[in-house]
Amino acid sequence: MKGVRIGIAGLGTVGTGVWNILHRNTDLIQARLGFPVEITAVALRRPRPDLDLSKVKVHSDVMQLACDENIDIFVELIGGYKDAAAAIRAAIAAGKHVVTANKALLAEQGESLLKEADEKGCLIAFEAAVAGGIPVIKALREGLCANSVSSVAGIINGTANYILSAMSESQQSFEVALLDAQKLGYAEADPTFDIQSIDAAHKITILAALAFGIPLNFNAVKTQGITHITPLDLVNAEHLGYRIKQLALARRDANGKVDIRVHPAMIPKTAMLASVHGAMNAVMIIGDAVGPTLFYGAGAGSEPTGSAVIADIMEIARHTHHESSNAAVHPLAFSVERIPAQYLTADDRQQSAYLRFTVADSTGVLAFIAQQLSQQGVGIERLVQTPIEMEENSNGPQFMSIVVITHPAPEKALHAALTALELSSAVKAPIQVIPIEARVC
Amino acid sequence: MKGVRIGIAGLGTVGTGVWNILHRNTDLIQARLGFPVEITAVALRRPRPDLDLSKVKVHSDVMQLACDENIDIFVELIGGYKDAAAAIRAAIAAGKHVVTANKALLAEQGESLLKEADEKGCLIAFEAAVAGGIPVIKALREGLCANSVSSVAGIINGTANYILSAMSESQQSFEVALLDAQKLGYAEADPTFDIQSIDAAHKITILAALAFGIPLNFNAVKTQGITHITPLDLVNAEHLGYRIKQLALARRDANGKVDIRVHPAMIPKTAMLASVHGAMNAVMIIGDAVGPTLFYGAGAGSEPTGSAVIADIMEIARHTHHESSNAAVHPLAFSVERIPAQYLTADDRQQSAYLRFTVADSTGVLAFIAQQLSQQGVGIERLVQTPIEMEENSNGPQFMSIVVITHPAPEKALHAALTALELSSAVKAPIQVIPIEARVC
Repeated sequence: MKGVRIGIAGLGTVGTGVWNILHRNTDLIQARLGFPVEITAVALRRPRPDLDLSKVKVHSDVMQLACDENIDIFVELIGGYKDAAAAIRAAIAAGKHVVTANKALLAEQGESLLKEADEKGCLIAFEAAVAGGIPVIKALREGLCANSVSSVAGIINGTANYILSAMSESQQSFEVALLDAQKLGYAEADPTFDIQSIDAAHKITILAALAFGIPLNFNAVKTQGITHITPLDLVNAEHLGYRIKQLALARRDANGKVDIRVHPAMIPKTAMLASVHGAMNAVMIIGDAVGPTLFYGAGAGSEPTGSAVIADIMEIARHTHHESSNAAVHPLAFSVERIPAQYLTADDRQQSAYLRFTVADSTGVLAFIAQQLSQQGVGIERLVQTPIEMEENSNGPQFMSIVVITHPAPEKALHAALTALELSSAVKAPIQVIPIEARVC
Repeated sequence: MKGVRIGIAGLGTVGTGVWNILHRNTDLIQARLGFPVEITAVALRRPRPDLDLSKVKVHSDVMQLACDENIDIFVELIGGYKDAAAAIRAAIAAGKHVVTANKALLAEQGESLLKEADEKGCLIAFEAAVAGGIPVIKALREGLCANSVSSVAGIINGTANYILSAMSESQQSFEVALLDAQKLGYAEADPTFDIQSIDAAHKITILAALAFGIPLNFNAVKTQGITHITPLDLVNAEHLGYRIKQLALARRDANGKVDIRVHPAMIPKTAMLASVHGAMNAVMIIGDAVGPTLFYGAGAGSEPTGSAVIADIMEIARHTHHESSNAAVHPLAFSVERIPAQYLTADDRQQSAYLRFTVADSTGVLAFIAQQLSQQGVGIERLVQTPIEMEENSNGPQFMSIVVITHPAPEKALHAALTALELSSAVKAPIQVIPIEARVC
């Protein structure tokens, strides 16, 4: 049987992974599909003398690859916005199906791309865009398709998780852990997307759209970075039974209101998610029928991400070779509902939180903090008082640390109490606030 | 668009789950598919006055349902062997696709059923047969289809896991924990399949066939029950950094030799699998490209299992409504290789183990044990000696317990050493042997 012909745009980390797997597992993949997957063309910026490119057409221009008559599927692995979007549009205009790992592009411009693909009868598959090799998009679209999903929560940025894990294990500061991560290749030279939670926000935008059948809406994601987390917070978390993770969350409440956010959160250390260390990823999905489920694996890397790209290629190949148009990878599949979402506001949001106050003398301050919180209706679940060991204070006044775990309270009330407390002279440093998420598995 | 018409054989726990989800999420499911899923007929043994059956044809004979002209998909949820097999065969003969949760039937007679279905161009889908609501069959067939899989390891019997979890948490004996599990509905009146690891063996037979592309071969599974595990072993395990789980394992080594087994095993308590408590399930899959992955969720229950059944129904519906014949749920899909497996023997198998010896006086015995193990080339990694607190010994002689953790050694060598030791008068009770599996995530 005739094979499916793919063109790979970009032979960087992921592209090379795709290349290597397709060459190593050629027979296996052909046996599973019933026909071969053939790389007929690639687009490259730099020469790759380490690869035998003698059997493929090599384009230097990605737009030429997109329009190459000898490819059925355009595999976009160049990343970024402008060139990638133009190439995908050109491929769709030429009637080609698309496989992409480009989370940023999908989250920010995915709506129009999906619409264009749908109009041309083309598929866009993007398993590799979220959580690397973990088949979580497939789980949402197909495995759990009988469920009304209420919640998706995940650790979906390996760099941030690596940094927080390292800080927790060796009491490193954020800055030192970041430098180490950069040296080891876990963090890029410009780590902004990872440490400011933008990358995870892109991914949760995609997961939320699939889970709730709402349009992709990156602007609706509330985002906070991990740069303010200190070793002291990580130690406190352990003592209190929690672990701090960069958590991406998408929830839909009983009224259908959607809440999407990424920020550092304390989760119970007995939760499965708390055991996700280093650069690994995991996504929890709660469905009304299935209950809580969790999907774990490598969230990045050459071959793990390549594994997801090839799964998409094989999925499209299975369908196109049989002229079925209703594949689960259909651009609009699993979001046929696609009702614009109503989003939760700070008025609606209830949250427990870890609060860390730096104070000079705790005697009167403790009562003052309790009173301010209580005045706004924020209940205290636990209160711990410890001297702070901070190098920068060794020659100055000895500060005390007061840690409060609150009961769930409206975000607005907590905010009001904290604003009042920060104005007080008894509070000697910005109050550290880390939300607590107990509803994870 | 015309809907897909299903006939449900059996409205027991799972059948009722399917019924409830299809009625509750009707709109959602129709939106996702583009057409409705209609229950047109059921087969029942007992009346169900609690359900509104006015719109469905009610058969008392499952064979009549299998041949009902008004169904497209036959959903077999009666369980057991004879009637279920006959009904599935009748449905296939009538050209119907089949969805089943029947792990026992598939593991023991699946080969002939899949062949018959293939010859008739019918699909058999069985996501619900393994790990309840967790879409792990789909992950193996599709999500990880670019991978050569080397290992599948899982906690896939909720009853056994519930019993071991309860024993560990409250120091109960096996017998007491089993009775509790029966009272709470986690264990059946006849718990043989669960506690003798037969149910998990059925499931790992299916997973191994999909993972390695080998025929279903229940007889190749090496099985040991959990009835010999004592609270003392569970306590020892915790102290040594392990947890005891009923573990189902399917591995393929570098020579292509396959090893499939289910038995209690000690796994590192830091492993994700060690955090799978109570009636939950999890399956770890290691692929050459993706590395280790883990899939976690409810392994049984009405709606979790119903969720998987409906995912299969929707999968088949998507394909049949578009006359594609190469669905990933194709009877032989993902096992097109289907090369009869070569199985590992005790000669090949290397294993670390926990050994617990009950001895009267440990002074000379300790050296004797070390010597016997060493003579067979079994290395000792750790040795712990503790007095035993056993009620039954309170009036008799005070026995000592010697616990040994071995280095990996050939199973045959370990067996020879243990046989010699059991013949010794110093050893006062059968030696407890629990394999250690460190290669889990």
